[in-house]
Amino acid sequence: MTVKNQTYPNGVNVDQLVETVNAIKDNPELAKFKFRASAKWTEGGHSRTTIKSFYGAGQEDTTRTSAFVVEGDEPSVLLGTDKAPNAVESVLQALASCLTVGFSYNAAAMGISINRLEFDLEGDVDLHGFLGLSDKVRPGYSGVRLTYRIDCDAPPEKVDELVAHVQKTSPVLDILRNPVTVTIASA
Amino acid sequence: MTVKNQTYPNGVNVDQLVETVNAIKDNPELAKFKFRASAKWTEGGHSRTTIKSFYGAGQEDTTRTSAFVVEGDEPSVLLGTDKAPNAVESVLQALASCLTVGFSYNAAAMGISINRLEFDLEGDVDLHGFLGLSDKVRPGYSGVRLTYRIDCDAPPEKVDELVAHVQKTSPVLDILRNPVTVTIASA
Repeated sequence: MTVKNQTYPNGVNVDQLVETVNAIKDNPELAKFKFRASAKWTEGGHSRTTIKSFYGAGQEDTTRTSAFVVEGDEPSVLLGTDKAPNAVESVLQALASCLTVGFSYNAAAMGISINRLEFDLEGDVDLHGFLGLSDKVRPGYSGVRLTYRIDCDAPPEKVDELVAHVQKTSPVLDILRNPVTVTIASA
Repeated sequence: MTVKNQTYPNGVNVDQLVETVNAIKDNPELAKFKFRASAKWTEGGHSRTTIKSFYGAGQEDTTRTSAFVVEGDEPSVLLGTDKAPNAVESVLQALASCLTVGFSYNAAAMGISINRLEFDLEGDVDLHGFLGLSDKVRPGYSGVRLTYRIDCDAPPEKVDELVAHVQKTSPVLDILRNPVTVTIASA
């Protein structure tokens, strides 16, 4: 267990957070980020996605020295070799990862110290959509349920305020709850 | 390089795919799946998500003997320790993973043999949303661009048909392009 520094509540450098906010207020262009990924199919339902470069804070990032490689696959019942989570499971991971950051950073900014934070997620998919068996059934999640457990040093009403703010500002929650324009073209 | 079995185009067991479709036509309940994830915050922007159990084809899955653990973090410019991709990068991975499966399985069903399939993805985020600096800027992707490169044994018009079908039936593409209801509650 890491001992948390007093000036870094939740392990978050609040000074740097405040500096980031002020820098963006001075120059809104610094807020523009472009994230990227490249993926290769191998066989069956298996893929390897490489994540490294991104643009943000006015420049191409130079701090990442190596790439992350993330695999995707399907379990056997969905004709895969189960080498990795499938794509809709990865969506749940992305949402959990995003809300973790949202809780941790915003709690730090509000002076709330978190001892424990956990999420359970479940989403419903009806294969009629993916298999093209029905136009009336959507291919993606018909619904996602998330429960959180938080142990922190704030009273319940302040935790409610934190949860409301996180829900309003979470990138991945926004991506799920609201339409995103995705353009697909041959290279 | 794996030598692809003639009866398994793209490494996809088309017999099992046809059996799955027929089983669902006989019993639509078999199409209902529930995917799950559990996540724990560690410190700062870092999280560990565990993915194992799911329900589908009328029962709890029993084939996965161990869990997948997927980490999330933020790069240093976003106050993280860069141990893993961040949440919106994971969204791009999920989309790539999903489209890989869609291309591979549907091509197999159409009798198309794929030699090479790759994707490049890029998405735009403006931090004014996440940082709560503007109500007018969405926290999530304002847009995602994907390009694909495919080398296969089908004529261009059949590839176009494949791409159109994949776009119509991709679970993660649907999750991005259309609203998903996400309920969030304290455990």
